[in-house]
This record gives sequence, C-alpha cells and structure tokens, in this order.
Amino acid sequence: MITASICTIGDEILIGQVVDTNSAMISRRLGETGVRTSRMISLPDDRETIISIIRNQLENNSIVITTGGLGPTKDDITKAALAALSGSTGYVMHKGQLEIVHRILSSRGLDVLDINRAQALVPDTCEVIPNQLGTAPVMVFRFPEGKFGHPAVLYALPGVPHEAEGAMDKVLEDIRSHFSLRSISHRNIMVYGMAESALSKLIAPWEDSLPPDMHLAYLPDTLKGVRLRLSVYDGDKDDEDSRLEGQIKALKAILGDMVYSDTDDTLESRIGQLLRLSGKTLSAAESCTGGEIAHLITTVAGASEYFLGSVTSYAVSVKEEVLGVPDDIIATHGVVSAEVAAAMARGVRKLTGSDYAVSTTGLAGPDGDGVNPGGTVWIGVAGPNGTITVKRSYRNDRKRNIERFSASALDELRKMIEKDLNNR
Amino acid sequence: MITASICTIGDEILIGQVVDTNSAMISRRLGETGVRTSRMISLPDDRETIISIIRNQLENNSIVITTGGLGPTKDDITKAALAALSGSTGYVMHKGQLEIVHRILSSRGLDVLDINRAQALVPDTCEVIPNQLGTAPVMVFRFPEGKFGHPAVLYALPGVPHEAEGAMDKVLEDIRSHFSLRSISHRNIMVYGMAESALSKLIAPWEDSLPPDMHLAYLPDTLKGVRLRLSVYDGDKDDEDSRLEGQIKALKAILGDMVYSDTDDTLESRIGQLLRLSGKTLSAAESCTGGEIAHLITTVAGASEYFLGSVTSYAVSVKEEVLGVPDDIIATHGVVSAEVAAAMARGVRKLTGSDYAVSTTGLAGPDGDGVNPGGTVWIGVAGPNGTITVKRSYRNDRKRNIERFSASALDELRKMIEKDLNNR
Repeated sequence: MITASICTIGDEILIGQVVDTNSAMISRRLGETGVRTSRMISLPDDRETIISIIRNQLENNSIVITTGGLGPTKDDITKAALAALSGSTGYVMHKGQLEIVHRILSSRGLDVLDINRAQALVPDTCEVIPNQLGTAPVMVFRFPEGKFGHPAVLYALPGVPHEAEGAMDKVLEDIRSHFSLRSISHRNIMVYGMAESALSKLIAPWEDSLPPDMHLAYLPDTLKGVRLRLSVYDGDKDDEDSRLEGQIKALKAILGDMVYSDTDDTLESRIGQLLRLSGKTLSAAESCTGGEIAHLITTVAGASEYFLGSVTSYAVSVKEEVLGVPDDIIATHGVVSAEVAAAMARGVRKLTGSDYAVSTTGLAGPDGDGVNPGGTVWIGVAGPNGTITVKRSYRNDRKRNIERFSASALDELRKMIEKDLNNR
Repeated sequence: MITASICTIGDEILIGQVVDTNSAMISRRLGETGVRTSRMISLPDDRETIISIIRNQLENNSIVITTGGLGPTKDDITKAALAALSGSTGYVMHKGQLEIVHRILSSRGLDVLDINRAQALVPDTCEVIPNQLGTAPVMVFRFPEGKFGHPAVLYALPGVPHEAEGAMDKVLEDIRSHFSLRSISHRNIMVYGMAESALSKLIAPWEDSLPPDMHLAYLPDTLKGVRLRLSVYDGDKDDEDSRLEGQIKALKAILGDMVYSDTDDTLESRIGQLLRLSGKTLSAAESCTGGEIAHLITTVAGASEYFLGSVTSYAVSVKEEVLGVPDDIIATHGVVSAEVAAAMARGVRKLTGSDYAVSTTGLAGPDGDGVNPGGTVWIGVAGPNGTITVKRSYRNDRKRNIERFSASALDELRKMIEKDLNNR
C-alpha cells in the first residue's frame, strides 16, 4: 500500500501555542483515497532540520505532505529549504498565483508589497497548484526513482487550516493520477442523539456480522453527532456499491429517526433541505446558546430563502419585551424551564411570522443557578402543528456545552419538520 | 539547551480519527520549564516502529515523552515495546497503582478483571509515577550516559488527555531534579486590523534591531488577528523580563490602537473586560453575520453581566418591524449600506436599552447582490457619544467571510469603547 508522511513545519506548533489540526484532516482525506499515513512529524522553522527530516521521509514514503512555513515573514523558511532539497537553481514567478495575490490584497484594500509578490515566487524545480484562498501556492516537487529508490512526490501546503483543507481536492486528484491506488468505497450515514459507546453496543450484532472486507468507522463530532463510515476495500466497483447499499439499509432500519442523512450533511444543511422541500420558514430565540443556532443555520448558502431571523435574549427584559414571554411564567417556573422555552419559541414565531421556531434557555456554565447545574438546557420547537419542549444536561466546558445545546436544538427541529413532511 | 521529543502512539491519530492535543499541552509545559521541544512524532501501534523511532529520539534528545498505547486492549503495545527497548527481563506489580485500579473500577461498579490488574504491571527496568486519574501508571525509564551518548530519560504517559495533563506536574518535577535547565521567557501581544505582511513591513526596523537572543513569531488567526510572540532564550530571569518589557513597549508605540491586548486575549474577552471596567452594556443587530457576533460575545463566561441580547435580521421585515429601520432608508440606500448599518445599531440599542450596539449588514457570499460582490459588509457601532460606520470587503468562502465580518465588527466596537474610556 502507498504510504505518506505528513510533516508540519512551524515553531508555533513545537512550543505548543497552536494545536496541529491539519495532520488529522490530511490523513483522513488520504485514507479515504487509499493512502495510508505512516508518520506525522512536527518540525521547527530550521532549515537544516527541515531538509534532513524531509529527505528521510521521502526515502521511506512515496508521498510527503508538508504544511506551514510558507508565510511572507522572515521566520518562514520552508520554501528555501525545499528549493535546496530539490536542487533548485533559482525562483520563477507563477503568474496565476500572482494574480490571486493581487486579487486578495486589493479586495482587502491593501497595497501589494514586494514581500506579497514574493509569495508567488517558487523554486524552478516545482509545479504549482494555485491556492485560491491565500497568497502562498501549493508546490509540487516530483522526484524520479533514482533519487530516493522509488518515485516520490512532495506536496508543500500552506499552514492556515482552511487553505490546507481547500488545497486537498487538487492534491488528491494529483495523487490518484500519479499512483495506482487500491480501490476503497465508502458510504456515510449521519446519526444524532446517541453517544458513540451506546451506539456501538446497539449496532454490535449488525457490525459483528459484516463481511471481512468491510470496515465500520465511528467519527464523532460535537455539532454533527456521529458519522458512521462503512468502507469496502479492493472490491469490484458495481458489486461494492450494491453490497454497501444493502448493509446501509439494514443499519438505517436499526437506527430509525436518529439517522438524519445518508450523505455528508450537517444538521443545519439537512434542515435547509427540509424547509425548501416544504416551502416553510424558520426563526430562532436563543438564550444560553447566544446566537450559535442562528450562526449555524446561516452558514448554509441560501439560508435567506427560509431563515427570517432570530432574537438572542440574554437579559430577562429582552425575553419579556421583545419575545413577549409573560413575566408571570418566568416568576412561576424560572427562566430555565419548559414553559419559558415554549413561550420563547412561540414568541419569536409570532414576532417574525415564521412557520417554525426553535428556542433555548439554560445555563452554559461554568456556574449553575442554584437549582440547575451548569450544562442544563430546555429546548423548545414551535411549528404549525404545535410546540414541544425537551430538557438536556451536559457536563462539558462552556464552549462545548453551547455547541451541544445548539446541536440538540437543531436535531429536535429537524425531527419535527421531518415528521410534518411525512404526515402531509 | 536540553531538548525533548514528544511521541504520540496510536493508529487512531494516524488515520485522522483523533486530533493530537497532548503534544501541544506537553510542549507548552516543557517550554515554561525551560526545555525546548525539538520534535513531535505520531507513530502507529507497531512494535518495531515504536522501538526504532524511540531509540532514535533518545539518541538525539535528553528527554523523550510518549503518550498513548497503554490501554488494556490487544492493540496497545507501547509497554511491551518499551520493556524490550530498556532490556527488561520481566514485569513487576506496582502496589500503589494496583490500589488505584481497584478504587477506580469499584467506584464505577465494575469487577476487577485480570486485564485490569495487568495495567499495574510494569517492566522491572522502570520507576513509576502513579496515575491517580486512570488505570495506566506513568513509567520512567532512565538510561545512563553509555547507552545513547548522554544521560537520557523516557517518560511514558497515558494517552487520555486529562490523564496526561494530570501527570505533567510530577514529570516536570522529575525533569527539574535531574537536569540543569536554561530559561525561556515569552511575551505576547494581540494585534487586529493589519495583515501579517503589512504588519511585518511596518515593524521591520524594530524587528531588525532586536538583539540576537530575541526571536519574534507571527501567529495569524481569522478571529483574533495576529499574535506577536517575542521570546528570549538563556537570559538571567529578572533581566530577561525587563528587556522583553522594554521591547514590547517600543513595539506597542509603533502599533498604536491596533494592539488590543498584551496578554493572550480574544477580541470578545477584551470587550468583556472593557465593558466591566466602564460598567456599560451591549447589544447586537446582525444580518450577514447571522448570530456569530452574539455567539462570540457569549462564549466569554460572565457575558450576561453586560450583554443584553441581539437580533438577527435576515429578512427585511425583521429589520423594519423589530429593529425599526425605516423602509425609506432601505429603499433609498439599499440593504447593504452605511445608513442601514447605522439604523440597525441605533435600533437594537433602543430596543434593548443598551449603552453600546454593534451591527452588520452585507453579503457573506458566495453571491453578490448585483451592486456589491459577495464578501462586502457595512459595520455600525452606536454608543453614548454617537454612531460610526465602516465598510469592509473580503473574498473568502462564506464561512470565512462571516468570521472576518464578525472579528472586524468586534474590533470597531472595541476601539469605540476604549476611546470612550480614555476620554472619560
């Protein structure tokens, strides 16, 4: 099997100021393509170290992917190190990347300085994959068999995570066209509402009966729930697809309405699809989630077609005066209650004239309110056929609690819209 | 200077299922103690690989810290590999750790199985630091100068992040008692409003005149701006601090109000400090940022003391009816305009009764509206002394545009509150 080594370059990683998330992203994408990651290494911004480690990795792997050290400032020296390693005799200006540099800087109202232009200069020993999202291009160095004992390719990616991620499609395309890889087929399903361990126990009989060439992976995510990825290696393409389809069908029968998608959706993109399908609109009233639910909904392009708006009511006065939550409900039941969650959802539905509304009221933490511990939330969902409320408790830090509250609220909303659609 | 290598062991890291956060935590703690991390490496659960890589790291470093691979299941083989590497002739039961194993399992209502007891068995070549938080102890292997050309120590820590973190105090104590360490000092400042390249040009004269033992690093972040980190190695502790202080003071004089913090703050935590200091309150009206500004503000613990709430007005009707933006302003100037941004900020300030209000109206993208391209935003900030509006343009993807819009809006708000505080 073709192996890759992933090298992260930058002092900021080695002193622990930044956690390296690029390596996990890259190895996941490589794995889906049929390339196994043999090693991940983080290196300092030191020329001799970079050269000797990368040479060693090229001797032991067909593919080396580096991230980082390509910035315009003096501490970024990856490019010079790779020029030396590849025996470059000079730099050439890459016109396509230079245009991108100009576009990016002018869109920010900034002058293009010499050090910006230098970002588009690359060693004459490399090919370029333009980076549309940033100023430093992806450099591709190809080494013939004679150099390291086998054909080898080095991809140097920028270190900014969304730029590295944005470059991976083209990198994987290049890898597929230059190496003969084992075939891997995957199917994903997205599940919300059950922890990984409980899920694993529930589906154990199904999982244990999988044929030996099939493998199930659990990929938990706070905001998305658990992605279950079923893979089959080295099969016949047509046969693989129908075998995967059969197993996924059996799995979905076990999991019921916890399955919210059989593609790579998020809860918020699935909600967008359902609202478009039903021609309905949405609003939100948030207390403890503080805007995160509205933020998630509006990260979906075209959300303005169905999302009317939201109110974040941190102060009680905003709950009462803007959302119209009666003060006697708050006095009787407390702010963190089913009654207030329901009144908030109904209130914002009325205020905006939306078909559906979702609400949260709770305690993100770290502190509780004397009655409820931090991590408690009441969720409300109001729709054309009524209102539901649900209580959830988590024990994470503040940021994680807000994410879990938001994802749980979106999931309750998703289930109500799906149910209404099915009963039409 | 004493150097360390951090080795993370586990297939789950190499397939990208888990992001390694232990290495950053360990290197940060080492750095504070005066040990420089020379390398971070992630390895698979493979005996021969573990032995050869760790031997190589011990040849090149005085300290090697491993995490992971100490679990009770078959795929965890770190302990056997280290036993072989250290020339162990057998295992011994560590009574203290065995007591902890019994305590932890009985507290969870579980029986103690042989496989659990085996967690307290360690090679006869190591010392033990008991792990109070889990079943696998920390193993300390000391190698005399003859073995690797210098005295070397290997610490094997469990992979569970809070267990690894919990073990670090004792590990650092052991390191300090066995090595004479150099000192490292850092100072950070946080800068918003200038790209890394422009910043680098502006401060080049200052940077070029830094003494040779000082090093400046640029750490850009979409939401935080640029963190500038100034480090000095091997100085006298008192002297170092005052030399760093002098340089930071000179740097801050160059950067003026672009500097928003000289500790490790975010824009939203800095705004929280400023509002507490001035006893003022805040609200927000968001269109294209869709709740992200409110979300960022409320990730700060205690935000309820100054944040009253916000309105996300995605639909024009919500702008007009909830925020009271006059329809003739929208008709004359368009939704994406200074006039609407100002009216939204004033509207939500009045609606919630807050002292300050921040607003956004624009196009997160990918599409524009025919007049403005996607990535255009108007920001409004209203306060006790008036209202300002600012236009910004970016050309990123939707998610990144929303982040940049939000950070820019927070920065304008931060500057207004700071100015009002200074003029008091």
